[in-house]
Amino acid sequence: MIEFDEIREAARLLEGRVIRTPLVRSHTFSQMARAEVYLKLESLQIGGSFKVRGATYKLLKRREEIGPAGVVAASAGNHAQGVALAARAAGLPAMIVMPVWASMGKQEATKSYGAEVILAGDSLAESISIARGMAEEGRTFIHPYDDRDIIAGQGTVGLEVLEDLPDPDLVVVPVGGGGLISGIASAIKPLRPETRIIGVQAAACPSAFEALRAGRRVSVEAKKSIADGISVKEVGEANLPIIREHVDKVVLVEEEEIASAVLALLERKKVLAEGAGAAPLAALLASKLALPAGGKVVLVISGGNLDPPLMERAIRQGLLNDGRMMRFSACIEDVPGSLARLLDLVAVTGGNVLHIHHARGGKDLSLFKTRVDLEVETRGFGMIEEIKVALRAAGYEVVVRG
Amino acid sequence: MIEFDEIREAARLLEGRVIRTPLVRSHTFSQMARAEVYLKLESLQIGGSFKVRGATYKLLKRREEIGPAGVVAASAGNHAQGVALAARAAGLPAMIVMPVWASMGKQEATKSYGAEVILAGDSLAESISIARGMAEEGRTFIHPYDDRDIIAGQGTVGLEVLEDLPDPDLVVVPVGGGGLISGIASAIKPLRPETRIIGVQAAACPSAFEALRAGRRVSVEAKKSIADGISVKEVGEANLPIIREHVDKVVLVEEEEIASAVLALLERKKVLAEGAGAAPLAALLASKLALPAGGKVVLVISGGNLDPPLMERAIRQGLLNDGRMMRFSACIEDVPGSLARLLDLVAVTGGNVLHIHHARGGKDLSLFKTRVDLEVETRGFGMIEEIKVALRAAGYEVVVRG
Repeated sequence: MIEFDEIREAARLLEGRVIRTPLVRSHTFSQMARAEVYLKLESLQIGGSFKVRGATYKLLKRREEIGPAGVVAASAGNHAQGVALAARAAGLPAMIVMPVWASMGKQEATKSYGAEVILAGDSLAESISIARGMAEEGRTFIHPYDDRDIIAGQGTVGLEVLEDLPDPDLVVVPVGGGGLISGIASAIKPLRPETRIIGVQAAACPSAFEALRAGRRVSVEAKKSIADGISVKEVGEANLPIIREHVDKVVLVEEEEIASAVLALLERKKVLAEGAGAAPLAALLASKLALPAGGKVVLVISGGNLDPPLMERAIRQGLLNDGRMMRFSACIEDVPGSLARLLDLVAVTGGNVLHIHHARGGKDLSLFKTRVDLEVETRGFGMIEEIKVALRAAGYEVVVRG
Repeated sequence: MIEFDEIREAARLLEGRVIRTPLVRSHTFSQMARAEVYLKLESLQIGGSFKVRGATYKLLKRREEIGPAGVVAASAGNHAQGVALAARAAGLPAMIVMPVWASMGKQEATKSYGAEVILAGDSLAESISIARGMAEEGRTFIHPYDDRDIIAGQGTVGLEVLEDLPDPDLVVVPVGGGGLISGIASAIKPLRPETRIIGVQAAACPSAFEALRAGRRVSVEAKKSIADGISVKEVGEANLPIIREHVDKVVLVEEEEIASAVLALLERKKVLAEGAGAAPLAALLASKLALPAGGKVVLVISGGNLDPPLMERAIRQGLLNDGRMMRFSACIEDVPGSLARLLDLVAVTGGNVLHIHHARGGKDLSLFKTRVDLEVETRGFGMIEEIKVALRAAGYEVVVRG
């Protein structure tokens, strides 16, 4: 367990060194959920996620013990940036081992914060064992979540939530290794035991969910997930007892629900969240949270580090999931005017063509036909159906794609 | 001129009805600009922009005069949503005329706030004249900026900035018709005359810039701009005198600068801004603001209503402008293994292939060649050059596209 006073000490040490992130009401999500919905925007934190809190607290508190050899950490993402920023703040050197596939954006950001980045390891587990090897040379290994100081630092998020909103009914937190939720729960439960703390995991990697069910840490398979920030196979040793004591429930969300939540945050609240950060909204919008009518819910948007290529993919995936985009191909006669006729039919339904690919030939096509691939902006599944019906009625062969 | 007391009255009336948006420091932009950079996030406002402030103040203050016939407005974007929200808050009916090309997202959002949306007019000017015609039937026409109440309402942004940061050196504000900047300047100058107020316009539509030069309102050509929210041909009659009195300077930014700023806000601060909202950052990053070293700058991020298709385009445009994405085509031999060899060459430079289009045939190609189009994620212009050199050295014909 983490003492409440440790979290208060962390808050004192972090004051002026990290951003006191805003808690912002969302009118749209409040209406959708018939509740009072607030977002704790750790996406606006330095480095784009809450990670800088725990790392900065740890490095400042343990600066003497760490000494001039500095720190080493392994991460493909937010922890890398958090430790790099914390080391700069503490005036310590930092070496970050990132798996070879780590995104360029995250590599560049970590370097820009002054850390030395080493690309090594085909998996995060390999990078971690390389980093631990470096720790034997005198550097201090900084664990991303299984560490009391880190937990206390992340707990400052919970203190700030209660300062801004003293009486939340629900606080919803993404869970990977469990660092953030064990900190937040340790901060909130002593002050307001009646507030329910709910964890959210991707169904693709349900480590805390399964651990709570089994009553002990279990290692689960980590399937590919858009919420890579919480794709952690096993919750931390220090974290699980706190979660069992203080967290009321852990719920699971599907990949499509997460992608739709990423899009909803962007489009309705202009907030860029990474998959993990959007998971609490995914749980809310998919009705996975038991909510008192008009109750106050805080969604902890833990971070916003979504790489542009993934951002694009999430936007498209969200549009497709919501029936706001239709991708289809149609075979048309290879004669002048036939594409124009097809587009006319789409236009009268109100669809807005975003992209056309028109390629001649193909082994499954007759010599006098050609296939066009279209991407059309639509208003919902109703319009998609209308377009299909209109085109088929006009004799086009239409194949709708993912 | 707008009396300071009017703005204070607006703030009192708006309290609890609009979001008191956060002022958030950006560490990355501070480092880039060697200054203290703060963002006033009106993108988090209800409806996604500052517009709800002026509209709500006007409708609450004038409710009796307006009466049960309600209001009518014309807009393709933020003003539509602002008036719809304000009417709901004031319990008045609202009719919004939107040009036929208004984006689906904005139509849907406006309807979701309870307004009646009428699609009419091929241009915004046509929609406005249709809306004015409806005003003759008893509805009150709500102008987006040329209105003292609207200006006072937008001015509350300035009051909040000074509450959170009492001594900014520069406050940078996007300028279209001039509603926001005339309000902010009227709020800040009486309290802190030494703060410089800088307006930013897209070079594609420099209405305030030219008006200041000419000393009178002039109508400029509105070229196509990603900053459609400030694409206003002529500043307002009530606004220009305030701008002349209180605004220190208006600077212009180019389309590429705006697109890069949209991407930078998303990627470095996880904030979705529309083109107009990103214009102040564009001015900062393009060194168009004269800044005292270490000075405090507030960038007013006026709104975040960027439609997903435009969002995608801005992300790509920004990536291309920054050398973070390379699009090129190459001719390869139409034999097994030749595409694999090409991709190997790209891989050794460190480029990450995002998209391949491989089409056989084409009238300018020999029978034994085929062309591939590639999109590669790159680390900067240096890597783009490396890829070009490596491919050409290996005998490939490479054509780099936009």
